[in-house]
Amino acid sequence: MSVEFNNLDTTEAWATLSGLPKVQLRSVLTADRVNRFECTYELGAGESLDYNYAAKAVSAEIIDALGALAEEQELIAKYKMIASGEVMNTGEGRMVLHHLCRGELAGSVMHEGRDLRAFYEEQRSRFSEFANGVHGGTITGSTGRRFESVVQVGIGGSDLGPRALFLALEGHEFSHAGEQRRGPILETRFISNVDPDDATAVLQGLSAESTLFVLVSKSGTTQETLTNEAFALAWLESHGIASPKKHVVAVTSETSPLATSSDYLDSFYIDDFIGGRYSSTSAVGGTILSLAYGPEVFAEILEGAHAADVAALESDVRRNPALLDALMGVYERNVLGFPSTAVLPYSQALVRFPAHLQQLDMESNGKRVNREGMPLNYATGPSIFGEPGTNGQHSFYQLLHQGTDIVPLQFVGFGSPQYGEDIEFGGSTSQTKLNANLAAQIVAFATGKNDENPNKEFPGERPSSLIWGERLTPRALGALLAHFENKVMFQGLAWNVNSFDQEGVQLGKVLTKQVLGSEAIDPVLAAFAAKTGVR
Amino acid sequence: MSVEFNNLDTTEAWATLSGLPKVQLRSVLTADRVNRFECTYELGAGESLDYNYAAKAVSAEIIDALGALAEEQELIAKYKMIASGEVMNTGEGRMVLHHLCRGELAGSVMHEGRDLRAFYEEQRSRFSEFANGVHGGTITGSTGRRFESVVQVGIGGSDLGPRALFLALEGHEFSHAGEQRRGPILETRFISNVDPDDATAVLQGLSAESTLFVLVSKSGTTQETLTNEAFALAWLESHGIASPKKHVVAVTSETSPLATSSDYLDSFYIDDFIGGRYSSTSAVGGTILSLAYGPEVFAEILEGAHAADVAALESDVRRNPALLDALMGVYERNVLGFPSTAVLPYSQALVRFPAHLQQLDMESNGKRVNREGMPLNYATGPSIFGEPGTNGQHSFYQLLHQGTDIVPLQFVGFGSPQYGEDIEFGGSTSQTKLNANLAAQIVAFATGKNDENPNKEFPGERPSSLIWGERLTPRALGALLAHFENKVMFQGLAWNVNSFDQEGVQLGKVLTKQVLGSEAIDPVLAAFAAKTGVR
Repeated sequence: MSVEFNNLDTTEAWATLSGLPKVQLRSVLTADRVNRFECTYELGAGESLDYNYAAKAVSAEIIDALGALAEEQELIAKYKMIASGEVMNTGEGRMVLHHLCRGELAGSVMHEGRDLRAFYEEQRSRFSEFANGVHGGTITGSTGRRFESVVQVGIGGSDLGPRALFLALEGHEFSHAGEQRRGPILETRFISNVDPDDATAVLQGLSAESTLFVLVSKSGTTQETLTNEAFALAWLESHGIASPKKHVVAVTSETSPLATSSDYLDSFYIDDFIGGRYSSTSAVGGTILSLAYGPEVFAEILEGAHAADVAALESDVRRNPALLDALMGVYERNVLGFPSTAVLPYSQALVRFPAHLQQLDMESNGKRVNREGMPLNYATGPSIFGEPGTNGQHSFYQLLHQGTDIVPLQFVGFGSPQYGEDIEFGGSTSQTKLNANLAAQIVAFATGKNDENPNKEFPGERPSSLIWGERLTPRALGALLAHFENKVMFQGLAWNVNSFDQEGVQLGKVLTKQVLGSEAIDPVLAAFAAKTGVR
Repeated sequence: MSVEFNNLDTTEAWATLSGLPKVQLRSVLTADRVNRFECTYELGAGESLDYNYAAKAVSAEIIDALGALAEEQELIAKYKMIASGEVMNTGEGRMVLHHLCRGELAGSVMHEGRDLRAFYEEQRSRFSEFANGVHGGTITGSTGRRFESVVQVGIGGSDLGPRALFLALEGHEFSHAGEQRRGPILETRFISNVDPDDATAVLQGLSAESTLFVLVSKSGTTQETLTNEAFALAWLESHGIASPKKHVVAVTSETSPLATSSDYLDSFYIDDFIGGRYSSTSAVGGTILSLAYGPEVFAEILEGAHAADVAALESDVRRNPALLDALMGVYERNVLGFPSTAVLPYSQALVRFPAHLQQLDMESNGKRVNREGMPLNYATGPSIFGEPGTNGQHSFYQLLHQGTDIVPLQFVGFGSPQYGEDIEFGGSTSQTKLNANLAAQIVAFATGKNDENPNKEFPGERPSSLIWGERLTPRALGALLAHFENKVMFQGLAWNVNSFDQEGVQLGKVLTKQVLGSEAIDPVLAAFAAKTGVR
């Protein structure tokens, strides 16, 4: 395809956009707009997710200009290039294929004679079978005892996404083969930090004989993960397991040092085309989620994600939630100048989803050079933070309402709780209170309130959007995940950065190695190493 | 005292500060500076915490100007006014007395004939005795069974600080009365969110007969907390407890609706002079922490906090870590224009400490008017976020190193793990690796790295400071808590805002009530309420 890669600030649409009149939310926000400024993901099985942007600081005119920007930056064409296996991670010379884990969007993708969709599906059927074997008791610990608990050992993308998804489904009631059940099949935990207190605390109370580890490192060289593997193996051994590696499955690339070991109970493979922060729907997330909830639940997550991926192919910006969300974010960042964004799920189940999005967004688009390596003259990825509502209301919302900076908000909410439990108190249920707070906050942020006491004045004009679903199901969760992946992808394409590398993490690794080595090091580094007790 | 309250931008020191040459970290950072740019908290019992600011973008000249600013804004005098019981929460007409929970700094504070230090100590001795009674089995559940678990029900300041402190000590080995022990005496959990999934999940697996609830709401009217109390009482009743309130102690003000109920097992009191986000060292944190770890551990937290409070009285800015940290933050926010700050503890135990600081800082100083209610022309509190290292390195550090915005960093680290466990792997232990990473990151952020490939270029000039201690003990934890409380206080005083109210949370409460009520409401609010399924 003959697309062009241009910096945002060289486009005509950008010049138009910057010159358009700004929107005053207080003036434009009507009930009618609440109903009209919305598009919907259809997820199959009667499920859907709405994306409502009535409280975003945009006009029809601005949305038109965003659509023109999408066209001029050829965002959909570039998305299709990604999906079809073009080398879009230019710095590292790699394809970007996380979408292919959930389905084909633009035909098959071949690499060295291999159909990669088939490869991902083959791995999925392998770890699905493995999970079924563990659940059925045909695959056991080395002493013959059934596995009752599973611990994922991984960091960054091998931890945050899978952990956020695991926590999001802990309370969900699954229906499978006529059976209803709630909660994980195996006790499921995660170790990530190289701080030994992490592994020590996580392993407390587990029985070595019945504990399985899922060791996740694409490269097979991640310092923290290898160290924690050693920790886990020592723990197994000290608890009487003679063949500790028979309690470990590896998830890694076929060329990694881990892949060559036949000592593991099993190994499942990913490849260089699945970036860590995009790997939740690959074997990285799939193995642990299949062990926790069953392969059929993981399959539903994939279906939801694929539906959102398909929806993101739509070229009409008003009918493409991820594209619209992305472009409004660019507008907020570069025209309105807002430096950070808060993610606010009104759902306790999504307690760690903001932490996943923090990595996804900040690691993808926290870049200061374009995809050709030329420094940029405009701001790229914002800082991302968030906590579940209503908790955040009693924490940092003060600044969001009355601080000197405006922070755009990304709300998420659902109609029903996951567990069946709810209580009526003071005339309403907990779930109703939760959602009443959500509705109230959107309006309070958007329109504010005048008061003669300036300390009680709310300036409003704090834009927000809302992703809304009836229930946080595996399918809705998959779509939510893909929505943000695609949003981040479109933003990176609009900014003309490479959202798929992370050169910014390298220098710290190099200096750490120097500190841990025995060679002479830079005196400043040596002084800080002395300060932290290392040298 | 006759101090003056002036806006930051009206001071002479501010004009001087803004005009001083900026510092290039790459040029000034030497090993000698690493050793010199440091001051130390002495905490008693041989413990200390260092505050190292070598990697902050300040020169001797800038620090002098910050000292002059402290003097001109009379920050120490104003701190003493707070400590001595002046009405410094002007909007609400209240004193600000959290320091008094840990000791007197400026003589006794009387209110309506009562010595408030004595009142706080009386409450402490009451909840200490209660905790000892629970531990000793003289205070039991209503069926005579010993309490084995305790659940704090509270939100915001009644949750984040106490929870962060609880988690921070889970792995610490306590020595008391010749006995060594590790971990909580009672299984300890927290419910905060009005989302019913929070309470449902937290109560799973607990035995009603042996579960005690600590219900925390100063006003006794917090919607979430009263709703979750109802949830807890219903849970107790449905599990056969005939007198469920006999499984609840209230922590509240003497004038709150909760205080008038004699149905509770017991009640402990705070007053209007302890703000929620500053209440960890009052009965709000003290009751749950004494139940979890014993009153003697809570006493050590108070000692550490008091030592830091005393250190914050020092007028030489170079010998006052909280004052220096505060003023460098003001410099970064207002002269250098950095909009957010990341808190990065290299300690898994501090996993929720950033969430507490997020509330403490953003709710205190996220203000757009000064203490007289006049709109300000300069930025106040930044956005705060953070995760433990090394986890964050594999998440958002990409943006921190190579993003288009500079985010100042607040590192925290310790020499030893809390649990005794550690493992040597590849020539170093986990703890050594953790701290090698910490040292390496400080240097990588400060000095960066040139590279002919701009994508691998690190601009550096990312300022950071480091709080360093040998071990995360109760005393160190108390000092860490107080350090940030005092930092936030000094920043608020420098900005001339009231750091002790939170009018910005009111509008959401009012609109929520409208949504939940039966009166006609604004059509936009009604439209969003319909969208979220409430009306």
